[in-house]
Amino acid sequence: MDRPRALPQRPIIGIIGAGAVGGYYGARLARHGHDVHFLLRSDYQAVREHGLTIKSCDGDFHLPAGAVRAYRRPTDMPKADLVITALKTTSNDHFPELIAPLLHDNTAILTLQNGLGNEDRLAELFGRERILGGIAFVCINRGEAGSIHHLSHGLIRVGEFDAEAPSQRPRQIARWFGASGVKCEAVTDLLAVRWQKLVWNIPFNGLGAALDLTTDKLIASPAGVAQVTRLMQEVIAAAAAEWVRMPPGMIDKQIESTRSMGAYRTSMQIDRQQARPLELEAILGEPLRRAQSHGVETPALEALYAMCRVVDGAILRAGVSASMPASAPAPP
Amino acid sequence: MDRPRALPQRPIIGIIGAGAVGGYYGARLARHGHDVHFLLRSDYQAVREHGLTIKSCDGDFHLPAGAVRAYRRPTDMPKADLVITALKTTSNDHFPELIAPLLHDNTAILTLQNGLGNEDRLAELFGRERILGGIAFVCINRGEAGSIHHLSHGLIRVGEFDAEAPSQRPRQIARWFGASGVKCEAVTDLLAVRWQKLVWNIPFNGLGAALDLTTDKLIASPAGVAQVTRLMQEVIAAAAAEWVRMPPGMIDKQIESTRSMGAYRTSMQIDRQQARPLELEAILGEPLRRAQSHGVETPALEALYAMCRVVDGAILRAGVSASMPASAPAPP
Repeated sequence: MDRPRALPQRPIIGIIGAGAVGGYYGARLARHGHDVHFLLRSDYQAVREHGLTIKSCDGDFHLPAGAVRAYRRPTDMPKADLVITALKTTSNDHFPELIAPLLHDNTAILTLQNGLGNEDRLAELFGRERILGGIAFVCINRGEAGSIHHLSHGLIRVGEFDAEAPSQRPRQIARWFGASGVKCEAVTDLLAVRWQKLVWNIPFNGLGAALDLTTDKLIASPAGVAQVTRLMQEVIAAAAAEWVRMPPGMIDKQIESTRSMGAYRTSMQIDRQQARPLELEAILGEPLRRAQSHGVETPALEALYAMCRVVDGAILRAGVSASMPASAPAPP
Repeated sequence: MDRPRALPQRPIIGIIGAGAVGGYYGARLARHGHDVHFLLRSDYQAVREHGLTIKSCDGDFHLPAGAVRAYRRPTDMPKADLVITALKTTSNDHFPELIAPLLHDNTAILTLQNGLGNEDRLAELFGRERILGGIAFVCINRGEAGSIHHLSHGLIRVGEFDAEAPSQRPRQIARWFGASGVKCEAVTDLLAVRWQKLVWNIPFNGLGAALDLTTDKLIASPAGVAQVTRLMQEVIAAAAAEWVRMPPGMIDKQIESTRSMGAYRTSMQIDRQQARPLELEAILGEPLRRAQSHGVETPALEALYAMCRVVDGAILRAGVSASMPASAPAPP
């Protein structure tokens, strides 16, 4: 099919999965005057009544209720020129019913989700020419309903899923984000950036969720630094098997910059503490399977995946916080 | 040196490290009329004032303050015929100053500590002919100061460290315990029983501490049962390299009997939650090193040891509960 590979100058934007990431970036775009439509679930009522509040290290702001176009059902939303999905990857099975209603012939789909495999699944469902990926380098958490805490960083790198079919879309999106106060770079090798982010995400999200430790505690001891380093080395080896080379000195730099983040709870540790399913497959399972498919040995990653599955299994079966000691007294 | 290999009929017994295990078994012996002397640390004042309270699934009992011989310093204690050490293995560096003051020429030393390497260290320090080992199959926790909760089981298996120099001592000790209400069996192959206990201790203490999950949660999912099984298989392979054979069907039986324990917090999980050093070397490190010395591949054990070291490092550096989220509000 022959489809235009540029987006209209004033696109209609649909945000699917407006948790911390979708809510934050969507709010930035809306504040700058873009036509943004949010699909919300648990925060719907709060946002309808009070709007969206962003507490940001770059300056707080508030979008009043009348300025946020919030929806509960995707079938109520307008067709979009750009769909941005920031769903938890554990909800990827819902792509068809959540995204299909927003598509016209030329809708582009940008996934800001974590890990590997999301673009592939979207491409299977909706056609690879629609798909872009974005990697958000950001520390962000949900607060109370309708409120998002942006703690630090914020850069997005965005690129075409099909690296062999370049278009203007990544640069257009980067301009819109840039004008809205979000640093954003168009990249030509999305897969490389995905693997780069995994070099951080696999040890810190994986160990953080498995061991229930904040990032500062993970690297508080030589044993912790050694284990983080071992995992990073395995991820770099797996990436190399997909022709992705990392910059020299990357491991030391990532550990240093993690120290500057303080006692950060990764999204997977928060999911664990709140007894929500872990994003296991996108962040650990799919990278592990790709490493194995290339014959790269990744014993530390394999063990981490196995142990995160034990935690995930405990959460799913128990339905209560896994970090709550069984014999803990009830709060007064 | 030629030393008698039998203990006197009415031995003086010194308990070094009267936490849950030492306190419970010492209290049983004292209640039956044995001459038992307890070295206490944090519980000393409470025991001097109120005695020892045992809340036991086999029936509660109380030793009044006047009936408990409690000491703060080993140099104040009488020479003993039998020293029972139930120290945490992380305190094994203190063996010389804690145990030497209690020894006469014929004192026997029984270690009820966890894991591998404790008898070896005691033998190096005090002579191998003194040393016996005991494996306690018991679910037991400390309560408030001076109080111990005995939840289930209680069997001790006791044997000579030097399997090639049998003596009457294990049978004597088994009789004393038996008469005191503690099931106790003399064994001729201590090493085999140590490895048998590790088949349970390595997965449940190790994963429990690393992942901060109770035993029921560890085996709540197929992924959990698979990981426990994998670790048990590796321990059984390591034991086989030391000529220790396990009974057939052992893994299934151990998992089944663990289900009957409910939401049990292993000692290592409790240590983690209370920010105390983990018994890493005795339970994980020494078995791993023995497996490696025999060329047995134990990748799951190796990864578990590495991850427990991260947790232990986080605890030691932080000095606060590792399971407390950094952003948790202060208790009221």
